[in-house]
Amino acid sequence: MNQVKTERQKMLDGELYLCRDPDLVAGRKRAKALVKELQEAYHDDKERIRITKALLGTADDDTYLEKNAYFDYGVNTHIGKSFYMNANCVFLDCAKITIGNNVMLAPNVQLYTATHPLNAKERNSGLELAYPITIGNDVWIGGGAIVLPGVTIGNGAVVGSGAVVTKDVPDNVVVAGNPAKVIKHIDNS
Amino acid sequence: MNQVKTERQKMLDGELYLCRDPDLVAGRKRAKALVKELQEAYHDDKERIRITKALLGTADDDTYLEKNAYFDYGVNTHIGKSFYMNANCVFLDCAKITIGNNVMLAPNVQLYTATHPLNAKERNSGLELAYPITIGNDVWIGGGAIVLPGVTIGNGAVVGSGAVVTKDVPDNVVVAGNPAKVIKHIDNS
Amino acid sequence: MNQVKTERQKMLDGELYLCRDPDLVAGRKRAKALVKELQEAYHDDKERIRITKALLGTADDDTYLEKNAYFDYGVNTHIGKSFYMNANCVFLDCAKITIGNNVMLAPNVQLYTATHPLNAKERNSGLELAYPITIGNDVWIGGGAIVLPGVTIGNGAVVGSGAVVTKDVPDNVVVAGNPAKVIKHIDNS
Repeated sequence: MNQVKTERQKMLDGELYLCRDPDLVAGRKRAKALVKELQEAYHDDKERIRITKALLGTADDDTYLEKNAYFDYGVNTHIGKSFYMNANCVFLDCAKITIGNNVMLAPNVQLYTATHPLNAKERNSGLELAYPITIGNDVWIGGGAIVLPGVTIGNGAVVGSGAVVTKDVPDNVVVAGNPAKVIKHIDNS
Repeated sequence: MNQVKTERQKMLDGELYLCRDPDLVAGRKRAKALVKELQEAYHDDKERIRITKALLGTADDDTYLEKNAYFDYGVNTHIGKSFYMNANCVFLDCAKITIGNNVMLAPNVQLYTATHPLNAKERNSGLELAYPITIGNDVWIGGGAIVLPGVTIGNGAVVGSGAVVTKDVPDNVVVAGNPAKVIKHIDNS
Repeated sequence: MNQVKTERQKMLDGELYLCRDPDLVAGRKRAKALVKELQEAYHDDKERIRITKALLGTADDDTYLEKNAYFDYGVNTHIGKSFYMNANCVFLDCAKITIGNNVMLAPNVQLYTATHPLNAKERNSGLELAYPITIGNDVWIGGGAIVLPGVTIGNGAVVGSGAVVTKDVPDNVVVAGNPAKVIKHIDNS
């Protein structure tokens, strides 16, 4: 029997999918409502943690999301232990965003799994594409850094403020610049 | 008869103008109030569209502004068909911002028509300057990109994430980097 | 007698300090509550000014903070006369941020005094570091610019949009790029 893939499944599988699919629209509205609740919950840590866990695919009591977080879906973001994310970070988690343990994000970090065809006619059709972003353990991403679709950042890596990360980052290096390049090795042995 | 130009007209004409002019202050307060209403209207598409049309100089039922949009005036922004703007975009639309059809803005895109004199004494006088930004049809601007005063972006162009666009962008190219340079040609024929 | 330094004092002195110290947690919650109040006060200039003065270490009636400002503490930020800060600016003012007279910040400017050890084990201990940022008189910082810990920006300097300022900036120059470099001298005599 030939089963038809849902738009959600195509999105998660890195295939062209229709962004206006009602199930996906509902998923984005759900994330938006939870983020709004979160904005009001910073005086009450219990409530803040409850909402954070409802919003994300994986999270725990130590997961801390600062003000003005933005997630397309939230449920496609999976976070390890001791995650800290500073203000104004944006996660376009159409494809999966997977984050290891002990990861720190400075303000305004942008993780974009979403992309579009370069050809205008294809792009205007409403079809989109997304590629997963994977971040290892013990990673620190500096403020305003942008991580592009499909990128993997290695364990122990540090991404400099304002870096535009277009390619995979190896373990235990510092990258910086636009586009980001390795500028230093870190001894994490 | 010698008619005196209003500060608003000087602003739109690219002449030095006084930012503290009461009519301009009122215009910015109006935009701020409408953006605040918009923040609360994402559960109700009808209301969202009504506010969007009130906020912008030109918009239609398909115009979609994501959360945390910022406009200085709104009424100086004119948008074509099928416009999509993702979260946290900032439009300093002191001079006109004109956007064609089928334009997509990723999160955190910054369109700045506003500028100031480089000389400190002139700048501190409170006089400001603004130059229009024009974006063609079928343009995609990547996340965190910054477009400077007076820039025109050609039809079918793609601006890479994190690009700082200081000069005009021709039709059908990809630009990226800080400052942005052409890195690829696109076949949109 | 050997007095033990508080975590707050270590933070202000540029020494490793514990971010989770209850006094510091309370200080950040206070700033967050005041910023939230400020968001609701833009229709009422008196109230806006009252909150601005309560939030910052030093401010006056002319201090204008646009929407979506973010401060870690606020009280560690000291501002001169005629300060204007546009939307979405982020001040990580763990160490002191000192700003002169007649300073203008465009939208999305990021001032980060906070830093972390590069070594993963040290960083994961929860110990943090911060170095003061000092901005002279008559400075204009362009949109999306990032200023890193310990940086001093000279009098009359202009920082280009999207610049990542990793080193001190001399008086009366324009810097731009990632990392920022001097691209022009300004005659402010």
